[in-house]
Amino acid sequence: MFDELRNYYKKIAKYSSAASLLYWDMQTYMPKGAGNYRAEVISEISSFIFRMSTSDELGKMLTDVQPSNEIEEAIINVGRKEYDRYKKLPPELYEELTMLATILEMEWEKVKPKGDFFAVSPYLEKVVELSRKVAEILGYENEPYDALLDLFEPGMTAKELEEIFIPLRKLTLDILNKIEETKIDYSKIFDVYIDKDTQKDFNEWLIQYLKYDLNKGRLDVSTHPFTNPIGLNDVRITTRFIENDIRNSIYSTIHEFGHALYSLSIPEEFYGLPIGSSASYGFDESQSRFWENIVGRSLSFWKGIYNKFIELVPVFKRYSPEELWRGVNAVKRSYIRTEADEVTYNLHIMTRFEIERALINGEVKVSDLPDLWREKFNYYLGLTVDNNTIGCMQDPHWYGGSFGYFPTYSLGNIYAAQIFEKLKSDINFDEVVEFGNFEPIKEWLCKKIYSKAKIYKPKELMEIATGKPPTSQAFMNYVKEKYSKVYNINL
Amino acid sequence: MFDELRNYYKKIAKYSSAASLLYWDMQTYMPKGAGNYRAEVISEISSFIFRMSTSDELGKMLTDVQPSNEIEEAIINVGRKEYDRYKKLPPELYEELTMLATILEMEWEKVKPKGDFFAVSPYLEKVVELSRKVAEILGYENEPYDALLDLFEPGMTAKELEEIFIPLRKLTLDILNKIEETKIDYSKIFDVYIDKDTQKDFNEWLIQYLKYDLNKGRLDVSTHPFTNPIGLNDVRITTRFIENDIRNSIYSTIHEFGHALYSLSIPEEFYGLPIGSSASYGFDESQSRFWENIVGRSLSFWKGIYNKFIELVPVFKRYSPEELWRGVNAVKRSYIRTEADEVTYNLHIMTRFEIERALINGEVKVSDLPDLWREKFNYYLGLTVDNNTIGCMQDPHWYGGSFGYFPTYSLGNIYAAQIFEKLKSDINFDEVVEFGNFEPIKEWLCKKIYSKAKIYKPKELMEIATGKPPTSQAFMNYVKEKYSKVYNINL
Repeated sequence: MFDELRNYYKKIAKYSSAASLLYWDMQTYMPKGAGNYRAEVISEISSFIFRMSTSDELGKMLTDVQPSNEIEEAIINVGRKEYDRYKKLPPELYEELTMLATILEMEWEKVKPKGDFFAVSPYLEKVVELSRKVAEILGYENEPYDALLDLFEPGMTAKELEEIFIPLRKLTLDILNKIEETKIDYSKIFDVYIDKDTQKDFNEWLIQYLKYDLNKGRLDVSTHPFTNPIGLNDVRITTRFIENDIRNSIYSTIHEFGHALYSLSIPEEFYGLPIGSSASYGFDESQSRFWENIVGRSLSFWKGIYNKFIELVPVFKRYSPEELWRGVNAVKRSYIRTEADEVTYNLHIMTRFEIERALINGEVKVSDLPDLWREKFNYYLGLTVDNNTIGCMQDPHWYGGSFGYFPTYSLGNIYAAQIFEKLKSDINFDEVVEFGNFEPIKEWLCKKIYSKAKIYKPKELMEIATGKPPTSQAFMNYVKEKYSKVYNINL
Repeated sequence: MFDELRNYYKKIAKYSSAASLLYWDMQTYMPKGAGNYRAEVISEISSFIFRMSTSDELGKMLTDVQPSNEIEEAIINVGRKEYDRYKKLPPELYEELTMLATILEMEWEKVKPKGDFFAVSPYLEKVVELSRKVAEILGYENEPYDALLDLFEPGMTAKELEEIFIPLRKLTLDILNKIEETKIDYSKIFDVYIDKDTQKDFNEWLIQYLKYDLNKGRLDVSTHPFTNPIGLNDVRITTRFIENDIRNSIYSTIHEFGHALYSLSIPEEFYGLPIGSSASYGFDESQSRFWENIVGRSLSFWKGIYNKFIELVPVFKRYSPEELWRGVNAVKRSYIRTEADEVTYNLHIMTRFEIERALINGEVKVSDLPDLWREKFNYYLGLTVDNNTIGCMQDPHWYGGSFGYFPTYSLGNIYAAQIFEKLKSDINFDEVVEFGNFEPIKEWLCKKIYSKAKIYKPKELMEIATGKPPTSQAFMNYVKEKYSKVYNINL
């Protein structure tokens, strides 16, 4: 009986695998002229998955089946929650939104370089309108935005986020002011032209150094780096090469590696089942940020990769590992989220959170977006945005129909620091990282987090893994301690 | 009413598009460890397509619908024939065969370099057994093999092929003997090491010279070159680089370009419908062979590409266009079909035709294959095969479950020559080819063949396009005329 349910889910997973590949290909190798038809194909298969995920047959199985252990119980619970949620959505609404968002994301990519917001805003208006409809149908206690946020971070509310963000903003601005008082600009170290081939060579070495299993993954290039779990034993990542800042490719690669490692470490027997993924988007992001920032931006990591780095990119020979470490940790107000340092990163998220919350709650219109972005960005980061390419058009999320996703990036930072605090008490972190011996770290993460997949809710899993519910305390301590060293100041 | 039928087919086409991409990716970029799961996904989606293609709903529509013009009539006729055929096959049989063949083709690729036939023969036995079952279920008048041949070349029988092949073998051996008497070996010209990057550069220039629309296609690399119509406005080709013979990549690329051009030229309004493809496998091959051999191996073509060729591959500067033209037309008994010249090529097909006919008709066993190959190959080509890599394991077809496919290659040669005979009477072929002005040729082919898609049966289409039913006469004349010039002899 339970086998029947399992097989049903595993069947859905096969169509999801096809849809994932269609998406990955669209972002990497698809000829440009094939875009419209590709959107139709993705929409058809997504609708099919949607219909299978909301069928009466599945509903009956979820009601009738008797779990014989805790794992089966979790499968039914998570499955039931998803089922009930999607059951509320009319298939036509889902289909229309998927289709529109696929087309809009392609259009966005085309007009982004020119910052031509009003070329895409009519579509975006429609996507926001449909997303607001989705929020209404899914339901919420306090505000429509919570309904969408819950899709990415189960149990989280806008109010809770606000409470996390208020002290975080204060601390961030404190640190930022103290750092700016030093007048030190470490970022110049990396202000060097490095051609794409050199960057490619280094990044290809890097994923092997991190022991990304290339028998189960690959590294490609896309405008916006992403990780795509295409199927069992097939989780691919992309990066991008910015020729005047090699840090961008290095940290995109490590970031996506973190996502891929989590995904590839979910126990095979859970594959395709409701519990067969990361615990939440915030948890998923905690792993990309853990590898990117906590591992990849540590002094020990730079000591470990130093020789190979200066061999492949010899222009950096004139710097010591410490100097390069400071260079990748340079704190600076900047326009682009994905290039932001650990300290200011959350300010970028707060900007987006406030805007998308207001959009979904119906307090602002899509046509207000460019101005609203300028205003909020100035409030949070003190910078004046003078074009949409680096403003409200820099990220694909909204154009791809994802509202409520951005906050999970900040939750990722917060979760990562809390996990790190615990991990450090079990493992001599600096020593293993310096020797490129990542196995103990991977094993620890696998045991505490990856192997638990989505059996527990985010808050529960954090308690199980670290002994405490999630708070931003560990992150604040981490930032103060690290940047005191980076800038030789007292934070 | 007709719209309903059309939409039904267009829906199936979207799943076929997904399946095509899954296959293309498997052959190009998929991480090796993902193969088993990929086979499951392809099998699931293929079965779904199979179920949709054999549904009672479709059957009823095909019966009830009233065509209002000739095109709609053709759609119903071709659709009906396919429907009735697939309706006969039990879904489990189809599923098992697809799944097995996908796995076997991957296994074949792994063990082919070692020529370890007995590592894959147990699977191949099963694939042959299931294919024989398919033949029995589909039915035939004379022999089981005809049932499978008809899947690729509607209306063709093994007996008819035999009648075409007997005089062709005689003529081929006659020509071969006369050429061998000259003791000239033009093939040495190309016996030079050319690195993969140089070959890649030239091939990338070449597809642009042929005006392959890269907005609707791409060139990649795979073990066995292929063309894959992935979706509307998305037809991709692959090539391969053999470092001691640049001819291999050049002619693989042009060959696949020919397939892609046909596919991209089918009228968009037929896309996804039963008539929305080439007229048959033989017709499809006639276009790849037309571009590869009749255009690409002509003296005019070499005059046209000469300057760019010696610029990108300067080692060939010492030869004239005429010498290079002779080099790509060197006739020589050889082991590998895809490297064979136009004269001996059909002998490779005759070998395979006799073997697969005997296999499907149950006259020989899979375990006899290596020995049988040695015997037949010696009879047709007079060469001794001492390992399976260059013997019965050289092509993917059988391992991918395709029996009855090989003869369409020879039919392609025959059709191409007959089409060329007619085209020459309308277009100054040598002049346009020499100036790289392929537009008049493409327009002619589009008008006479591509635009007709699969509206007519192969024999009918040949009559419409050339005024004659298909015969091997034009091919024999073409070969005699061309090779008299290549070798300065009287054929």
